[in-house]
Amino acid sequence: MNKQLILAKRPTGLPEKDTWTLKESEIPTIKEGEVLVRQDYISLDPAMRGWMNDTKSYIPPVGIGDVMRAGSVGEVIESQHPDYEAGDFLTGWGGVQQYVATDAKGWYKVEPSLAPLTTYIGTLGMPGMTAYFGILEVGKIKEGDIVLVSGAAGAVGSVVGQIAKIKGCYVVGIAGGPEKCAYLKELGFDGAIDYKNESVRDGLKRECPKGIDVYFDNVGGEILDHALARLRMHGRIAICGAISQYNNKVVKGPSNYLSLLVNRGTMQGLVVLDYAKRYREAAMEMGMWMMEGKLKSKEDVYEGIENFHETFLRLFSGDKMGKLVLKIS
Amino acid sequence: MNKQLILAKRPTGLPEKDTWTLKESEIPTIKEGEVLVRQDYISLDPAMRGWMNDTKSYIPPVGIGDVMRAGSVGEVIESQHPDYEAGDFLTGWGGVQQYVATDAKGWYKVEPSLAPLTTYIGTLGMPGMTAYFGILEVGKIKEGDIVLVSGAAGAVGSVVGQIAKIKGCYVVGIAGGPEKCAYLKELGFDGAIDYKNESVRDGLKRECPKGIDVYFDNVGGEILDHALARLRMHGRIAICGAISQYNNKVVKGPSNYLSLLVNRGTMQGLVVLDYAKRYREAAMEMGMWMMEGKLKSKEDVYEGIENFHETFLRLFSGDKMGKLVLKIS
Repeated sequence: MNKQLILAKRPTGLPEKDTWTLKESEIPTIKEGEVLVRQDYISLDPAMRGWMNDTKSYIPPVGIGDVMRAGSVGEVIESQHPDYEAGDFLTGWGGVQQYVATDAKGWYKVEPSLAPLTTYIGTLGMPGMTAYFGILEVGKIKEGDIVLVSGAAGAVGSVVGQIAKIKGCYVVGIAGGPEKCAYLKELGFDGAIDYKNESVRDGLKRECPKGIDVYFDNVGGEILDHALARLRMHGRIAICGAISQYNNKVVKGPSNYLSLLVNRGTMQGLVVLDYAKRYREAAMEMGMWMMEGKLKSKEDVYEGIENFHETFLRLFSGDKMGKLVLKIS
Repeated sequence: MNKQLILAKRPTGLPEKDTWTLKESEIPTIKEGEVLVRQDYISLDPAMRGWMNDTKSYIPPVGIGDVMRAGSVGEVIESQHPDYEAGDFLTGWGGVQQYVATDAKGWYKVEPSLAPLTTYIGTLGMPGMTAYFGILEVGKIKEGDIVLVSGAAGAVGSVVGQIAKIKGCYVVGIAGGPEKCAYLKELGFDGAIDYKNESVRDGLKRECPKGIDVYFDNVGGEILDHALARLRMHGRIAICGAISQYNNKVVKGPSNYLSLLVNRGTMQGLVVLDYAKRYREAAMEMGMWMMEGKLKSKEDVYEGIENFHETFLRLFSGDKMGKLVLKIS
């Protein structure tokens, strides 16, 4: 049987358990040009919260009654696709379900002997791509820049910081709790601010006394305002997400946005899907950095499609360490 | 005697009359390398409100006891400067005073036979330069763009809209009251929204049904949020000012800033001083457009340095038509 997680209703605020229902159905059969994938892992990302709202966004919302959208990785069980055969491993948008029949458009073949499967939905998957293109193309970092990243111990932030270090920047991360801050130091960050146990404003004074050239924002809210207040001349802010605001009815806008005027700064949004044609290029470079030991990856793996809800909530409580992954098959 | 307006205290909110005091002193004497200018007109600009706050900005605040900073234009009465002689007209940062002795650094000679003196502190002065570089360099307009500008009947906004028309854009302006909106149509704007008499949200639906490529923001506040909500893919927002917020203790940040993410948009601040080396180039091009009748300029001139306070308040009430100027000599 195929267990599928179905979106049952649109949540207000933090999603409750009955936002989804678990459904059992037959394992799908494939047609000419399709593969059947047994999905081993799904990726849990803050963006999923946005996909559940019925609002115009960069991607249509998940429909009520549809399988919850998620990135995934798994093994081809059966193939009628010219490019793939049983035993191949693929990553794509398989959703929260144990089996999926797909024409594999937008899926990529991955090599489990080179990296753990979970890395292909983490540092070598969407979060890694987001970090890579976000910090290089939107952040436009150059050697010597002072780079600040929030959500720094997470799937995107940890890669952002490491890439900025590789490129010769001075890197400060904001994360919640001493364990995560210690992890940032382990990854080579120059400074860490523990937003759960200290004032971010004071932390920024200590760690970025000369201000910030580039801020990579995953969280929004007050931290964005503190970063704006310390922006240097011609500073750039890459808006990747705003996890602090995703469950709010009214988003808190950045009161300090006029710092963009005073400092001739730029604030720019990014969506990783725009860079799809260059994923391969980025994955090759990041794979090299991983082999050279310059780029480290950590996944926090939970188990059981039944446990989707409580695992998903860890994104918002911060109760996880690294990329959040759920093993579902 | 020389009447000078002195900053007496730092205002909270809308400045009251006792924010400044009028002082009479001797007409200054000049030294070698200086000119004595009789200042005919001073420019009243929203930015002046910001210069009165004791906060870090793009320019130091006006000191308590100092002459209030202002752009000005006037006639050289006496010269010990190699480049200028009595009878020349100069524009610069003369401040709110009838006479100034200056080494003329950062001042420019102007030709009263080519344009009224007041135009040199309006469309051919800082407001015009702000419009020119803001819409071209930060807004990066191209033919066919849908351009929205707020404060559209004002010194900066009216020039922004006309330049956008010259460059082949579809231009919509937001202004307060039917008279100003009629003026926008006279200037060739394609659409006008009267924020004092209609919902800006509805006005934008009517005038920009396809959304906005470039928003030139002079006002901030809720209008910025409405513009963000209608931003098109890869839209640009030029942050020139935020007159709705200048007298507020707490600035309202744009709640809809995540539209930058969804639409891969950019929000960038600008300060005209950065383009000082190119003012001459811009003035030449704008002068040509004026002679060709493509660029119109309107100044609203009040009289008497004693009337500075009530004239200044017109910036915030909107009770003026075009560039606000005070004749002081």
